[in-house]
Amino acid sequence: MKQINVTITPESRANFTNNAAYCVGTGRMGLALHKEYLDQLAMAQELAHFQHIRGHGLFCDDMAIYQPYTDENGVEHEEYCFTYLDRVVDEYLKLGIKPFLELGFMPKKMASGTQTIFYWQGNTTPPADHDKWARLVKATLRHLAQRYGEEEVSAWPCEVWNEPNLPGFWENADRSKYLHLYKVTAKAVKEALPNMRVGGPAICGGDTSLGWIEAFLDFCRDEQLPLDFVTRHAYMAQTPQKNGRYLYHEMCAVEYTLDEMQRTRAVIDSYPEFKGMEMHITEFNTSYNPFCPIHDTNLNAAYIAGLLGCLGNVAASYSYWTFGDVFEELGVPSRPFHGGFGMIANGMIPKPTMWTFAFFNNLRGECVYRDANVILMRRKDGSFEGVAWNLCREGREDLDIQFTLPQEGQYTLLTRMVDEECCNPLKMWHEMGEPASLTKEQLAILREAAQPLSTSKLTGHQVGLVLKPNAVAHFTLSLYRPVPEAGYDYEWYQLHS
Amino acid sequence: MKQINVTITPESRANFTNNAAYCVGTGRMGLALHKEYLDQLAMAQELAHFQHIRGHGLFCDDMAIYQPYTDENGVEHEEYCFTYLDRVVDEYLKLGIKPFLELGFMPKKMASGTQTIFYWQGNTTPPADHDKWARLVKATLRHLAQRYGEEEVSAWPCEVWNEPNLPGFWENADRSKYLHLYKVTAKAVKEALPNMRVGGPAICGGDTSLGWIEAFLDFCRDEQLPLDFVTRHAYMAQTPQKNGRYLYHEMCAVEYTLDEMQRTRAVIDSYPEFKGMEMHITEFNTSYNPFCPIHDTNLNAAYIAGLLGCLGNVAASYSYWTFGDVFEELGVPSRPFHGGFGMIANGMIPKPTMWTFAFFNNLRGECVYRDANVILMRRKDGSFEGVAWNLCREGREDLDIQFTLPQEGQYTLLTRMVDEECCNPLKMWHEMGEPASLTKEQLAILREAAQPLSTSKLTGHQVGLVLKPNAVAHFTLSLYRPVPEAGYDYEWYQLHS
Amino acid sequence: MKQINVTITPESRANFTNNAAYCVGTGRMGLALHKEYLDQLAMAQELAHFQHIRGHGLFCDDMAIYQPYTDENGVEHEEYCFTYLDRVVDEYLKLGIKPFLELGFMPKKMASGTQTIFYWQGNTTPPADHDKWARLVKATLRHLAQRYGEEEVSAWPCEVWNEPNLPGFWENADRSKYLHLYKVTAKAVKEALPNMRVGGPAICGGDTSLGWIEAFLDFCRDEQLPLDFVTRHAYMAQTPQKNGRYLYHEMCAVEYTLDEMQRTRAVIDSYPEFKGMEMHITEFNTSYNPFCPIHDTNLNAAYIAGLLGCLGNVAASYSYWTFGDVFEELGVPSRPFHGGFGMIANGMIPKPTMWTFAFFNNLRGECVYRDANVILMRRKDGSFEGVAWNLCREGREDLDIQFTLPQEGQYTLLTRMVDEECCNPLKMWHEMGEPASLTKEQLAILREAAQPLSTSKLTGHQVGLVLKPNAVAHFTLSLYRPVPEAGYDYEWYQLHS
Amino acid sequence: MKQINVTITPESRANFTNNAAYCVGTGRMGLALHKEYLDQLAMAQELAHFQHIRGHGLFCDDMAIYQPYTDENGVEHEEYCFTYLDRVVDEYLKLGIKPFLELGFMPKKMASGTQTIFYWQGNTTPPADHDKWARLVKATLRHLAQRYGEEEVSAWPCEVWNEPNLPGFWENADRSKYLHLYKVTAKAVKEALPNMRVGGPAICGGDTSLGWIEAFLDFCRDEQLPLDFVTRHAYMAQTPQKNGRYLYHEMCAVEYTLDEMQRTRAVIDSYPEFKGMEMHITEFNTSYNPFCPIHDTNLNAAYIAGLLGCLGNVAASYSYWTFGDVFEELGVPSRPFHGGFGMIANGMIPKPTMWTFAFFNNLRGECVYRDANVILMRRKDGSFEGVAWNLCREGREDLDIQFTLPQEGQYTLLTRMVDEECCNPLKMWHEMGEPASLTKEQLAILREAAQPLSTSKLTGHQVGLVLKPNAVAHFTLSLYRPVPEAGYDYEWYQLHS
Repeated sequence: MKQINVTITPESRANFTNNAAYCVGTGRMGLALHKEYLDQLAMAQELAHFQHIRGHGLFCDDMAIYQPYTDENGVEHEEYCFTYLDRVVDEYLKLGIKPFLELGFMPKKMASGTQTIFYWQGNTTPPADHDKWARLVKATLRHLAQRYGEEEVSAWPCEVWNEPNLPGFWENADRSKYLHLYKVTAKAVKEALPNMRVGGPAICGGDTSLGWIEAFLDFCRDEQLPLDFVTRHAYMAQTPQKNGRYLYHEMCAVEYTLDEMQRTRAVIDSYPEFKGMEMHITEFNTSYNPFCPIHDTNLNAAYIAGLLGCLGNVAASYSYWTFGDVFEELGVPSRPFHGGFGMIANGMIPKPTMWTFAFFNNLRGECVYRDANVILMRRKDGSFEGVAWNLCREGREDLDIQFTLPQEGQYTLLTRMVDEECCNPLKMWHEMGEPASLTKEQLAILREAAQPLSTSKLTGHQVGLVLKPNAVAHFTLSLYRPVPEAGYDYEWYQLHS
Repeated sequence: MKQINVTITPESRANFTNNAAYCVGTGRMGLALHKEYLDQLAMAQELAHFQHIRGHGLFCDDMAIYQPYTDENGVEHEEYCFTYLDRVVDEYLKLGIKPFLELGFMPKKMASGTQTIFYWQGNTTPPADHDKWARLVKATLRHLAQRYGEEEVSAWPCEVWNEPNLPGFWENADRSKYLHLYKVTAKAVKEALPNMRVGGPAICGGDTSLGWIEAFLDFCRDEQLPLDFVTRHAYMAQTPQKNGRYLYHEMCAVEYTLDEMQRTRAVIDSYPEFKGMEMHITEFNTSYNPFCPIHDTNLNAAYIAGLLGCLGNVAASYSYWTFGDVFEELGVPSRPFHGGFGMIANGMIPKPTMWTFAFFNNLRGECVYRDANVILMRRKDGSFEGVAWNLCREGREDLDIQFTLPQEGQYTLLTRMVDEECCNPLKMWHEMGEPASLTKEQLAILREAAQPLSTSKLTGHQVGLVLKPNAVAHFTLSLYRPVPEAGYDYEWYQLHS
Repeated sequence: MKQINVTITPESRANFTNNAAYCVGTGRMGLALHKEYLDQLAMAQELAHFQHIRGHGLFCDDMAIYQPYTDENGVEHEEYCFTYLDRVVDEYLKLGIKPFLELGFMPKKMASGTQTIFYWQGNTTPPADHDKWARLVKATLRHLAQRYGEEEVSAWPCEVWNEPNLPGFWENADRSKYLHLYKVTAKAVKEALPNMRVGGPAICGGDTSLGWIEAFLDFCRDEQLPLDFVTRHAYMAQTPQKNGRYLYHEMCAVEYTLDEMQRTRAVIDSYPEFKGMEMHITEFNTSYNPFCPIHDTNLNAAYIAGLLGCLGNVAASYSYWTFGDVFEELGVPSRPFHGGFGMIANGMIPKPTMWTFAFFNNLRGECVYRDANVILMRRKDGSFEGVAWNLCREGREDLDIQFTLPQEGQYTLLTRMVDEECCNPLKMWHEMGEPASLTKEQLAILREAAQPLSTSKLTGHQVGLVLKPNAVAHFTLSLYRPVPEAGYDYEWYQLHS
Repeated sequence: MKQINVTITPESRANFTNNAAYCVGTGRMGLALHKEYLDQLAMAQELAHFQHIRGHGLFCDDMAIYQPYTDENGVEHEEYCFTYLDRVVDEYLKLGIKPFLELGFMPKKMASGTQTIFYWQGNTTPPADHDKWARLVKATLRHLAQRYGEEEVSAWPCEVWNEPNLPGFWENADRSKYLHLYKVTAKAVKEALPNMRVGGPAICGGDTSLGWIEAFLDFCRDEQLPLDFVTRHAYMAQTPQKNGRYLYHEMCAVEYTLDEMQRTRAVIDSYPEFKGMEMHITEFNTSYNPFCPIHDTNLNAAYIAGLLGCLGNVAASYSYWTFGDVFEELGVPSRPFHGGFGMIANGMIPKPTMWTFAFFNNLRGECVYRDANVILMRRKDGSFEGVAWNLCREGREDLDIQFTLPQEGQYTLLTRMVDEECCNPLKMWHEMGEPASLTKEQLAILREAAQPLSTSKLTGHQVGLVLKPNAVAHFTLSLYRPVPEAGYDYEWYQLHS
């Protein structure tokens, strides 16, 4: 059993910036018309209260915004249809979440080429006519401002395209074409809504990533373009092994990912013009594949806890890709557990990772302790709350955390535990025989098995908390101040049975 | 550790009649206007699907049915107001539960005396005019039949008064006056609705109980009165000790209660006219006091499991007193846990006993095994489900049940566990300091702590199930028939972390 | 046909203070535990968004706050139970409405006498011990502050007792005893929560009313008591005629009521210490009787529109007595329409008066015109909205209002009309034969018949609006700015059918 | 004013078969994943309680059922994914509606060609391999039977393809290829579920339609194929005129459509083998175009009333195409009113035609009168209900219907009226300026304007009912049996205002 001792004094403070709630990812906007998608998002919001949501597909044909037609006289009309956009954004706002707009991909009728990506065939080629593209961007933003208010919409960040350093997402991964697209788009954004914030280059990691960042910043500086923040992605996956539809890989260490982000941060800060500029990690996860079984595990929840414990000190946001499993990039998943990105499995079953976010996003107070396994906050009323996790990358042993609190006395410890034994719907589903279609009875017990185990303990000011392998726990510690009623004796039936 | 071995063969059968869902108790009908009451009832129905509900107060003044007035000319008008009755019954039917009507207590303006019972002052004296009473009964039943259909209403059982063998519930516990009331009332019922079923004498236990039953049956036989079923109550409480508002007592053994009911059964069967007539236990519980802390415990859940495991073989129903804690007999409870009768604490927190009913009421199939700790059913599809409990009256040790199933192979064991560690909101509330008013945060975690722990296990056809003290568990056992998908490897991340 | 011409210029302004949404009345707090009550309140809030709610019964025994008991040693414990208070206030706040606390009536165990009022028997005698009363007030307010926050609770106005100038509401209508109660109570309020606002004397109208106001103000001045606002009631009923349970009377003119309020205002302003102090009309309606059929009529809706059009210029609030028909003062009503105070009939049927409040409470913008039949507002975007009514006290003729708007052009007139033909559920119920219990079919069509008729018209800048007798209408007038789509021809099927 | 006299005697009977509720149409199954779609369907079900729903797209790629893949060894796996199908059917059943399955169109990976139809690109070519198609059909039906029960699923009718007599829907409108498809499919259906009912040929109208029916019946007879019912479509549109995106045409007479259906009926009955076989009109409407403004009008509602008044006597069902406006065949509509097929406009605004179905589908009792403008039913309790309509194809005049009822006395007439003045959201939207995006305020008043006007009248046994042009009304006539309460005088305030 691994052991950690945490001693808190009245002066204890720790450096912990918690940006976990700023943004969350979603597959593509057209799926936000689905009821199951909205139900899952409602669950995520109830548990984790995200502020923004970012995903692909704003301008894809299923959102049907760009609807040009040619009339009897051969005149082309550039018309826009906002029926679905309004519907999606209405629902987002009702759920208390605002868009983090990703401007892409290309409407088929505006595209210069036919290359598409994914089962849902997003066109990933530059516009045939950049002026048309600029008008599309402006019309869309102005429409949103008219419907929801200019001040409101201007507060939604705007990112130009997605992972242009991958040829699948941007034809030939052509950097100069991306820079041109950024230029046209950023100007269009500011023309439509001068206070809207715009950023890029939305790259994924890999060998070329820092080079892209530098080229992008050079270009923005040289061309004096609008730039309000820099964006990139972060995945931990290494050494992929394919088996059928599924992909398995090892994950790098949390520290490795953190280091990669810090290096990006350093590049930005090396520019006098951009020093201190916000960096948004607009996608992150363990694996980048929607059929990688790790996503459904407690191991994943513990990995993500590790990241949420440190990424806020380097990035303004880190958007988990994705909140739910209504997702179609490599086809529609045929089974509830299939390694999808989501924190919530289809059928409204929260996965362990959902609780990692629920625990972090509700943390309140001032941080008094932080290390690679535990965060502890002091709340306004003097009580403590924290998150602890026991990521077991190699070897599996329990973790025993011993807290020493500054004030002596009795404490109430309330623990919400998520571990492989008490909150592991994947295991239950596997032991059911991995059914593709769940009966009502199976669904009900899976949902029940997906809840944290909540327990209490009376303890002194030295408090022990034990975490089994890959556990993630939320806990509170409050001074025990009983308000007994005369005659009420809790112990009586403990002693008389 | 106590051990039980249960061997099932294809021929195994056991004698188990499950009438647990037939009826549930409720304080008084006027409280059914309350939102919290209806919310609690909705929870009870969602979990345990009761068919009937029985409680006091149909004719009490807060239901406001009897509304006579005297006009300018001094003429008295016997008017009835069914506004609240309709509202209550509408809600009951919406929740899928039908009344088991208890006809009582006395409207103040119809009473012969001023004696009242309870904080809510139900008048417990005979009618000043039995004809008026008969008209009230008939008008009420006819109104119900007009609103809900005669066939529907005729299927609701009708019981005359409550515990007339106690002087608090019936002035002087005057038996001959009760028999007269029964006569008048039973005739009125049949006059209003010939197919409605009527019964009595609704007595509580105690030394006089069998004497009352005999006198009642003699009277019905001699007077040739309508009688469709016999009713009585059953509580297990002994040796009360008062402390402040609270009452503590020892409970008798399950067998003792069962024996008492069998003796009543035997009395009924001793009459040729009434042999085999249905007996309904229209109230039962451990303690008969609404401030007895046992009701909130896991111990209570295990006691009730013991009763549910055997009472169906002697009685047509046994109505747990009561489903929820919206209850005012000795005043309004000031704290969420106070030993109230309810299966659900105020604030919508299910107590352990709620799960006992949830587990029993959903049992399906044919019973293949029954003893004092476990019931096992074979379902249509060949799988098994059961309830097990470990009632610890003296001494506290774990119970290990070893099942041997008839067919060899691998099985999926799904367990929903309710024990003092994993599902014990009372303990958590106590360790919070016993707060009278719960904050939202406290309420949320108490509700979470009140859920069963659902887990799974893959096992051979010899299956072990361990229950901690006072645990109650529901479990299913199904042959493991995996439907794997090529490439999906659940084990991969178990091995690679 | 009566005609009014309303000419609006860019400079038009009118004196109209709209305090209609500040407060609404409710029977007694204990009824707020009822589901039907909360459903009706939810409807009132959805339609009319009231800010505060005031009613009787905070300290009555059904709220069960005061729960003293004497222990084994004969010691009396003054205990308080806030279970129901929390439940009620939780629901109020969920519905977006805050209490306007009326401190009364007397818990039976604290009362000096046995006099009660109403079917629900509120004790209306002074406390036997004013110190106990003060402790009760303080404990209650402090509990609320602890649960909901001191700042929040301090913003709820507090009124001492109800109509002490009536002997039914305050034993013997003893003025000096009321003044003493006010003194004790006002001090207790400020001791508990220094920023809470307290007022009185909550008198009803009648010959003695101004004398009471003066005596009260003299007392407060002389004793230097806390006083933040002055309260009184206003009913329009005259010449009552009784028939069975029902009471019929003539109503005085709107001007008469306004004048009475202005005279009260003048008394207050005659004190240098109290000049300009807020006056709250904590109850008002046409009739003061809950079985007066006027309340269900369109006539009532038009009367109330007349009052809402002028009372805001003299009073800080005027609380319609009451929002709904869950009300028990003279017994439980046996029929959906019975002349109850409510804006909503039992069964969730809005009465015409509900729409009067819906129309007034949603008015936005700056008033440009006001007379005895119409209010017109200019909204931020330059469009107009208004309420118009045609109160027919004597004689029944249509009212034709001709608006001349400042800007020429085409306008869209949208009208929501409530009149005796298009929105009159009372008439439909009468013509159904006045059924006491409504079938589902009857209920459904009554609800439908209780909705305003919404229509549109394209018009020039001279706009005619015709109101039938006792109609109340909401209307908007916006410049017609069509956004046609090429090819879409609305007229085509108008011409081709 | 046109006048009709309707005299009812105790012996009156009329020939009216009401199959309006049997089935309703929907665009394509994939849209049933949308929240707005399900909300609209819930509204349709609440109002009109349809039993079945039929639409395209079961096997289109957005439903993602056919998901073959080729493994590392080059072996092709024919896999099926039922995630979306389960989700859709779960929702249908929750809403009380069952599928009427249309088997089509072709999964891209199974298609013999690339021809597609509609914005959503349904592939309309024969299967490349008919065995694969048969396996797809069988796997799908067996999966449904496993999930929902074989008995349940066998009761869902099954239709083979859609409008194969149009080259857009079936490549080259190749009849022999369709007949082959029918043969393969019908056999597959029966192989999967022997009791499932299968039919075709699902043709649209036009010159070739009867020829197709004959060829189809010949083929089924000659090949001794399973055939349980015959299907075809019926639209009334003539002489189309295009303008921009919109299409306008004249409608044929109701009698013309009825005649066309009767001729089809006669063809079927001319076969001894098929005489009396059920005919299902699996699509019908006025216009066949989703951008034809007639669909949003009161005229359309009156046309459809005319059809519902007579089609049941010739067909077992007639499925209105479509229940709602979530529909994408010619693109996503950019404005709430655009002539879409739906009974409900986007934004949850019922159109007049919705009420035609609400009125017909809830008719109960025995028909006593039927003509081209009115249907009258006698209900079990002796009261009457009916639907009346005033279709104005040429000339616009009011219609005055005079009923003479068999029993003298006073009657309550309850009317729910839908006409161009009182229930015409299209007109209001037009007069608002035809906004593409509706504000909340606009949406709210449009929804209100889309409700029927419900009024009552006391009348003698000679009853007049006046309908304005294109009105559709539901009405009930019940003997007036007042249940007055002593003292309650409805007239008092009618006389005293």
